[in-house]
Amino acid sequence: MDPPTSAAHRSPDDEAAAFFRAAPPLRDRDAVAASHCSFRVRAAGAGAGGGGGPPAVAGVVCVTSGGTTVPLEQRCVRYIDNFSSGQRGAASTEYFLKAGYAVVFVHRRGSKQPFCRFLPEDSFLDLFELGQGSEIQVPESHTTVVKAAISSYRKAIDEGLLLKLPFTTIFEYLQLLQLVSTAMNCLEHHGMFYCAAAVSDFYVPWESMAKHKIQSAGGPLNMQLNQVPKMLFILRNHWAPSAFCVSFKLETDPDILIQKAEAALRKYGMNVVVANELANYKDVVVMVTSTGKTTVSRRSKEDDLEEQLIGLLVKMHSDHAKQSNPDQET
Amino acid sequence: MDPPTSAAHRSPDDEAAAFFRAAPPLRDRDAVAASHCSFRVRAAGAGAGGGGGPPAVAGVVCVTSGGTTVPLEQRCVRYIDNFSSGQRGAASTEYFLKAGYAVVFVHRRGSKQPFCRFLPEDSFLDLFELGQGSEIQVPESHTTVVKAAISSYRKAIDEGLLLKLPFTTIFEYLQLLQLVSTAMNCLEHHGMFYCAAAVSDFYVPWESMAKHKIQSAGGPLNMQLNQVPKMLFILRNHWAPSAFCVSFKLETDPDILIQKAEAALRKYGMNVVVANELANYKDVVVMVTSTGKTTVSRRSKEDDLEEQLIGLLVKMHSDHAKQSNPDQET
Repeated sequence: MDPPTSAAHRSPDDEAAAFFRAAPPLRDRDAVAASHCSFRVRAAGAGAGGGGGPPAVAGVVCVTSGGTTVPLEQRCVRYIDNFSSGQRGAASTEYFLKAGYAVVFVHRRGSKQPFCRFLPEDSFLDLFELGQGSEIQVPESHTTVVKAAISSYRKAIDEGLLLKLPFTTIFEYLQLLQLVSTAMNCLEHHGMFYCAAAVSDFYVPWESMAKHKIQSAGGPLNMQLNQVPKMLFILRNHWAPSAFCVSFKLETDPDILIQKAEAALRKYGMNVVVANELANYKDVVVMVTSTGKTTVSRRSKEDDLEEQLIGLLVKMHSDHAKQSNPDQET
Repeated sequence: MDPPTSAAHRSPDDEAAAFFRAAPPLRDRDAVAASHCSFRVRAAGAGAGGGGGPPAVAGVVCVTSGGTTVPLEQRCVRYIDNFSSGQRGAASTEYFLKAGYAVVFVHRRGSKQPFCRFLPEDSFLDLFELGQGSEIQVPESHTTVVKAAISSYRKAIDEGLLLKLPFTTIFEYLQLLQLVSTAMNCLEHHGMFYCAAAVSDFYVPWESMAKHKIQSAGGPLNMQLNQVPKMLFILRNHWAPSAFCVSFKLETDPDILIQKAEAALRKYGMNVVVANELANYKDVVVMVTSTGKTTVSRRSKEDDLEEQLIGLLVKMHSDHAKQSNPDQET
């Protein structure tokens, strides 16, 4: 723990420490840690040079997905939320698994899940019917996709290649990120972070939060929100400094998007910043790195942009791991 | 449309009119209206005295469910949300259907759905597996409940007794409520409103909203939010004045709960206000009416509180309809 500082401008480390000191404790912290331990991080063995034991995986990636909430009351009725369906993170998880990665899927409760993206918007029951022998049936148009989904999902879970950790608030999200990244630090260059979650920029510190539901009889509501410390900086510098780090920058204004992505690349020392616009994030993204920019466009409405994006990132991550382990280059 | 008023304290009618004038138009308004027309509101015939045509239903209820969001930006990345899983509305819809009602289920996208409440938190795929002949199977422990859910849901949809209308923002919610309640006004006393949605008290008027994502580089964020007009008053007085109206009051502080429920009963002319506390809303509620208070408690962990609650409300609604149609009393 850092000592308290009286300076008006605290360092990122001090800000992060202050945030965690004041955050409500993570529920089920021990259960999360235990599930994480039992997750068979095969790359730990594989990354260290293979040998006996379970078959190697290409790497381990922590995918963060969905938006974080900022409670406005301690016994929370109201909160500020960030738009994110979790579509990007869920699709990317599928392609990372396909590429041979083990995935820690840190996701917003209720957001899109891997292998479930084809589901009807509201009720999964729209997809099922009972046959004459009261057996469960899926309309023929959907049989192939539903069966493939069940099969791929079961395989990932049964082989221990997919660990799902849910969050709701910004407090839960950042505590989970710290827990997972410090645990993955031992993977060194074989670890990857793919931070697609839409993380709140502003929050109300827990100790200054209203205890009960804010009453509406008092007229208009005035709120002051503080900035959330930039934890990517801490992840990069302390929690898992050797990992391959990919973050996302979402804007609605195309005129400032690339410059903001480049600034994030420099400021937080990311390997890649994926820049996307709210209006067309499913169709096109720009990968910004220290050596240049690469535009990735969806080939057709039937394809996922994430298939190409993950293909490129897996290649870059492999180069990143080789550069730091020259023995393994051939 | 009301003329603009320069008075500092506008009437509820003026406030409501101003809210709708400034709201972004409801997407798919025509499609919603069409689906509502094709919904076989059988009680329209049945309530008017039966006769030929389709079999009678006990009544038509509009159940609202889930929380509304308040966008903070026009191209929305951030919004304020109200806590509500939609559990109450989804369970109540099931019991209204069981009691012979037709239900218009006005719900938050992604909230709990009728007959789906038993689902695993995150992935419906946790419930399914492929058999040896690659047929879709459910673990034996869940077979009965899944098959019953598919069967009940199919029946409700196929018989035209369940119409599902989704919303996300406070603007969409209130426009849908207006659309449904003015359409249900013809049912007179046979219509019921069961307003379980957690509706935002504060909002940012559309015209004063930031167009693009608010930038975090500017330091702390200050926001001023206006009060949302109390539309229950308008529903009661203009949209569907003869309907049986049930609203909900949720508080975290038990000391003010009942007095706030009684105030809502008087202020908006509700028939029933259901008072519940965030800490135990699944276990106990208090039904507040002009003649007294009734506490409803869950019998056991296996039972739904909503079963008893809907039973009592259906009885009260039936009395309400009889009082206004004395011919039908015997």
